Amino acid sequence: MNEPKRILSGMRSTNPRLHIGNYEGALRNWVQLQEEGYQMFCMVADWHALTTMYENAAEISANAREVAKDYIAAGIDPKRSPVFIQSHVKEHAELHLLFSMITPLGWLERTPTYKEKQQDIGSAEREPYGLLGYPVLQTSDILLYKPYGVPVGRDQAPHLEIGNDIGQRFNRLYGADVFPVYKYMIPDDETRARLPGLDVDAEGKLRKMSKSYDNCIYLSDTEDETAEKIKRAYTTPTKIKKTDPGIPEGCAVCQYLKLYSPTWETQWQEDRDGVRGCMQNKKELTEAINEYFRPMRERRKAIDDVTIEEILLDGADRAREVAAATLAEVRAAMGLR
Amino acid sequence: MNEPKRILSGMRSTNPRLHIGNYEGALRNWVQLQEEGYQMFCMVADWHALTTMYENAAEISANAREVAKDYIAAGIDPKRSPVFIQSHVKEHAELHLLFSMITPLGWLERTPTYKEKQQDIGSAEREPYGLLGYPVLQTSDILLYKPYGVPVGRDQAPHLEIGNDIGQRFNRLYGADVFPVYKYMIPDDETRARLPGLDVDAEGKLRKMSKSYDNCIYLSDTEDETAEKIKRAYTTPTKIKKTDPGIPEGCAVCQYLKLYSPTWETQWQEDRDGVRGCMQNKKELTEAINEYFRPMRERRKAIDDVTIEEILLDGADRAREVAAATLAEVRAAMGLR
Repeated sequence: MNEPKRILSGMRSTNPRLHIGNYEGALRNWVQLQEEGYQMFCMVADWHALTTMYENAAEISANAREVAKDYIAAGIDPKRSPVFIQSHVKEHAELHLLFSMITPLGWLERTPTYKEKQQDIGSAEREPYGLLGYPVLQTSDILLYKPYGVPVGRDQAPHLEIGNDIGQRFNRLYGADVFPVYKYMIPDDETRARLPGLDVDAEGKLRKMSKSYDNCIYLSDTEDETAEKIKRAYTTPTKIKKTDPGIPEGCAVCQYLKLYSPTWETQWQEDRDGVRGCMQNKKELTEAINEYFRPMRERRKAIDDVTIEEILLDGADRAREVAAATLAEVRAAMGLR
Repeated sequence: MNEPKRILSGMRSTNPRLHIGNYEGALRNWVQLQEEGYQMFCMVADWHALTTMYENAAEISANAREVAKDYIAAGIDPKRSPVFIQSHVKEHAELHLLFSMITPLGWLERTPTYKEKQQDIGSAEREPYGLLGYPVLQTSDILLYKPYGVPVGRDQAPHLEIGNDIGQRFNRLYGADVFPVYKYMIPDDETRARLPGLDVDAEGKLRKMSKSYDNCIYLSDTEDETAEKIKRAYTTPTKIKKTDPGIPEGCAVCQYLKLYSPTWETQWQEDRDGVRGCMQNKKELTEAINEYFRPMRERRKAIDDVTIEEILLDGADRAREVAAATLAEVRAAMGLR
């Protein structure tokens, strides 16, 4: 029997809670890969969170526990798929240092996400060295597990190419075959992966769900909180009365109905025809969405703070086993002893 | 009784052997500090060596053992002063990563040594990210030991200021008092610290002793090798016959006589007066220099490869104890757990 193919996945612990956009864009894909028999390693990237929030470092560790709970709530089974915090596996720091020494500065300066992240952090004076080196740390995270693949959205795939470039450069420099070329595990249902938020932008267009827009439904929201948020959600602005025709394509509530309501096609038609109002849509969406996420929310509530620490310790032990073996190969290839 | 004040010192293992210029410029100062009762930690910086020689990484580990032997040969007593290899104390990699996240990129781009090191490495395409981050790693090396001071030549002191800047920035960011401001332990005898090599530059001027100029006497040279090198050493070019007047200030052999021969004043006078020839100077210098370094060379020969590994393991254990305690404080201050 072959060893299962490994996959490394992770998110930064910049926020304490994941929203359903994170679920649709990433976690759903991870769970599917787990169910297909891949050996998932699910990391919470606390060191990465420092690149943009080193000034609020104290929040990062607490966030990390909550993010780990969300992974498990979404369906990651920590018995099969180790769930761990990056900083608990020190091998990530050592490989980061070694990769720092072989990654050309020019590659990092040309990374497309670098400019974005520079904007995230605001002022140039606050920009740390580690922000420029973000892909070096990310590559270490990935390659320590010598994965078959990494889950990623179609538009993010180019940003992960530098990881394979660094791995292959290492192999070439040291005449070794330590790192395989990993694949990009792009989810088949791309439309779910771009979940809009509850509001619209200045031009009246739906925009992505993001904590910074305060337009999220969280995995950890209660059913009442969810109902409350949906009540205030954006709908077709020209549909004042029930009989006014709706435009479901531009209505956040209708978008969610499409994902979470089995009868969405009828609902959309009636919305367009002016035979149902926005309040009815919202009521039915609330039921549908709460039903959809109920098992996840129940799983989440069942994980107490002691349990999550045990899960994370166990996850780190199992991740470290793989990471340490890879690092030993790295040192041997470089001739470091 | 107060705990002894700690001092962190180190050299890169880019070369397998230290020369007497390294001894005069650094090791002599370290030994003196050890004898004054400071708690020295003597690191061999193998990870640092990667910044400019990652393509020849395989040499670095062997070099590191030889450099450690030179430390001990010079008078560092590994029982009192832990001698260790940087990469054996993983805490250096973790603090490097954490400091990466709080060190402004601009500070590094403005570091005066950065431009120098860029030239060392030759082409821009070969320049790694870690070269820019050199001061971040160096600062981690230093601050893990929360030292009272670091030994440094007067002209290098400005290059170490970034270390205190990073330490104080950490304290300020996290409202903690983890890192003290360390002092620069500048040797009192600055003239010894600028030992010239055996040759001159294109303009006929003495230049520093450096492996790249192939103008070195090594601590590990035999007495015969030393004699042979001194035979070929540069002397006053206009002094062809014994009776021609010498110019001791510009003569490498006379410069060494000043350091290693107790009767150098007479020797210089006779050189100037044309009553002694260069051959006599060289003969007397050979005796003086071999006598001076004989105890060191004997100590060096007595250290076999098994012994040095034991010394380095023990040194790493003792260094790790201090480094791990500091890192625990760092994590606590940042709120990482």
